[in-house]
Amino acid sequence: MDVISVIRTKRDKGELTPEQIDWVIDAYTRGEVADEQMSALAMAILLNGMNRDEIARWTAAMIASGERMDFSSLSRPTADKHSTGGVGDKITLPLAPLVAACGAAVPQLSGRGLGHTGGTLDKLESIPGWRALLSNEEMLSVLDGTGAVICAAGDGLAPADKKLYALRDVTGTVEAIPLIASSIMSKKIAEGTGSLVLDVKVGTGAFMKNIDDARELARTMVGLGTDSGVKTVALLTDMSTPLGLAAGNALEVRESVEVLAGGGPADVVELTLALAREMLDAAGIKDADPAKALADGSAMDVWRRMIAAQGGDPDATLPVAREQHVVTAPASGVLTRLDAYDIGIAAWRLGAGRARKEDPVQAGAGVELHAKPGDTVTAGQPLLTLHTDTPEKFDYALKSLEGAWDIAAPDAEFTPTPIILDRIA
Amino acid sequence: MDVISVIRTKRDKGELTPEQIDWVIDAYTRGEVADEQMSALAMAILLNGMNRDEIARWTAAMIASGERMDFSSLSRPTADKHSTGGVGDKITLPLAPLVAACGAAVPQLSGRGLGHTGGTLDKLESIPGWRALLSNEEMLSVLDGTGAVICAAGDGLAPADKKLYALRDVTGTVEAIPLIASSIMSKKIAEGTGSLVLDVKVGTGAFMKNIDDARELARTMVGLGTDSGVKTVALLTDMSTPLGLAAGNALEVRESVEVLAGGGPADVVELTLALAREMLDAAGIKDADPAKALADGSAMDVWRRMIAAQGGDPDATLPVAREQHVVTAPASGVLTRLDAYDIGIAAWRLGAGRARKEDPVQAGAGVELHAKPGDTVTAGQPLLTLHTDTPEKFDYALKSLEGAWDIAAPDAEFTPTPIILDRIA
Repeated sequence: MDVISVIRTKRDKGELTPEQIDWVIDAYTRGEVADEQMSALAMAILLNGMNRDEIARWTAAMIASGERMDFSSLSRPTADKHSTGGVGDKITLPLAPLVAACGAAVPQLSGRGLGHTGGTLDKLESIPGWRALLSNEEMLSVLDGTGAVICAAGDGLAPADKKLYALRDVTGTVEAIPLIASSIMSKKIAEGTGSLVLDVKVGTGAFMKNIDDARELARTMVGLGTDSGVKTVALLTDMSTPLGLAAGNALEVRESVEVLAGGGPADVVELTLALAREMLDAAGIKDADPAKALADGSAMDVWRRMIAAQGGDPDATLPVAREQHVVTAPASGVLTRLDAYDIGIAAWRLGAGRARKEDPVQAGAGVELHAKPGDTVTAGQPLLTLHTDTPEKFDYALKSLEGAWDIAAPDAEFTPTPIILDRIA
Repeated sequence: MDVISVIRTKRDKGELTPEQIDWVIDAYTRGEVADEQMSALAMAILLNGMNRDEIARWTAAMIASGERMDFSSLSRPTADKHSTGGVGDKITLPLAPLVAACGAAVPQLSGRGLGHTGGTLDKLESIPGWRALLSNEEMLSVLDGTGAVICAAGDGLAPADKKLYALRDVTGTVEAIPLIASSIMSKKIAEGTGSLVLDVKVGTGAFMKNIDDARELARTMVGLGTDSGVKTVALLTDMSTPLGLAAGNALEVRESVEVLAGGGPADVVELTLALAREMLDAAGIKDADPAKALADGSAMDVWRRMIAAQGGDPDATLPVAREQHVVTAPASGVLTRLDAYDIGIAAWRLGAGRARKEDPVQAGAGVELHAKPGDTVTAGQPLLTLHTDTPEKFDYALKSLEGAWDIAAPDAEFTPTPIILDRIA
């Protein structure tokens, strides 16, 4: 087997054999196939695609490159969720304890943010004392003791994916549906969850800008999960405007706690409950009522135990950025658009995100929203508040907000976009 | 400027700007753009192409990465030839001294073989004492003193191409017409020749298997040369069967000397004369008669002086392989096909070529042909003689010859393929 013949097969629009896929993933993990060879193959896959059999084998080979976790010792059925990433997408934070409060075990291996979308671990790290890095034993113990755990994926899980993901990030080969699907699903299947709900975001603030691409990605991932014995469902959800009223780290933790306290923005509550119902259904848990678990404080109880079990203080005051800048509405009327991507870039520039993997993030930085599409605004009223510890970045953040919204005449018609656009099972 | 945006532009079928091209070639040469990034870009170029403006700029940027030579101090006009590579293609050896004998200066920067096609320098190195590596001053002195020089290209010429060529070789991105054309032409233009004749090979033993690809490559290169002020002409020539009656190193030197002595196989003489006439015409030399220069020994005189000027002994006995194996015709009839690629692979396996750049070659190894397509053969007569110092390789070489020829009934009709298929100017 030689790597050039594998590259040529895909370059010339052929189908990779199972042997070629197994070999190239293994040889790349071992360092026998060089980065420059894998990136040429990744570009050929991006441009010429892979069929369902190839994607399934590619995913299996990445799983086989590392260890697999096993939650069969738990008494509860496991349910996991994965979001393809959006702006203000803090849903994992209220969702994991909520679903645990309803009877499932929720092992939530999460990541850090890169680019304009925030990372769940970055958000939780704004809670004083909280630790993202757990050993496999610690993870199982938090999960068993509280019903939910949100932590970093260990190095042993799908190392081929870890290496390939870092390579794709610097070679312009991120946006390939077969590679995105196999990357997500290899980690989720290796993690050993019994069921999985995918939140595939669509819109300016998402990876997938149009619904057809999102649907193809969702179908591919649902197929991969189902074929591997993981009950998998996908919701396609809107990411044309930020979720909720906050994009940032501590800002989003605060909003998540509001939801767990029975309040919070309507769209965050709606999506949290919809995903919770899908997860419970996929895990085979009937008769649970997630709305009740939010209202009666049982989800909040799990949250507090889960945060404390990972060293965090659920009662600690969350960090606040040193400086604020208020952006006001330039006209009166109906806010018809508030762009997710532009807000995400602003939050990122204010310090909520990082440019390189090794950069730190600011806990208090981000963007607070005072209106959402469909709301009526008055000229001069606050539209956004920008938060940062580095006020010299205000101008840079404001630049990304040029053209970020549309305000129509007060009597203009406005048709709201539903949050849930489609369901693939 | 960042490399990912450059890669994305080409990946998404866009046109690279002059600034993007200049930057990416310079940054790659300096090591700021990594191999894995350049290979992803090369694959995107292979699959999505480049237009004429992009190729011209890419070529100019590779020329600008290094030094340019200058032959303006010579009293004669310069003429160079480049072949895209074939089996038994020893034409440079008789051609350079022949064209010099007719009044042009022929600076022939040549390469070594990799894969199934031999390299001009490997062939000449079978002459005891001959040196391929000359300083720029030595090169100019040999050229000025004898009218022709055949030597290795210095490291200073188009270093970006040198780096990119090595990368393409290991990443399955060799077969991209824009990259092949810019690689060849950047070296030829930097070399400073006034005129250039391209021998673009077509057929099983060539890089370009079909005439449409060959024509596109030829047109691209002629355009690049012309736009840079180099008078450039291309001949498309047949490479479905080996040129002449020998493929190997010393074997081809011997055949070349036969041609210079006024003999040699008809196809080698025909192509040598055709290319000589094109070179003389491109250099603006009228009234020269290359056929006469072969017949009267003046081309041979230049050959002897040129070989001697680079340390070689033109009277030395050429190396002969230690072992021979004769392959006989399995039937009587008309030889209708003798495959160039299969013969090239056999010669390579016998030791005439190398698998890796650092491997040595055997001077005496190769394949001698006793018949050519169109000849009538008798069952049991010698068809090929295999030469090697490593007889344990005979079986391996013979394997590549399975199905390498067709012998038809003695009365079968045979239409010979012309050597020169087309001319692009």
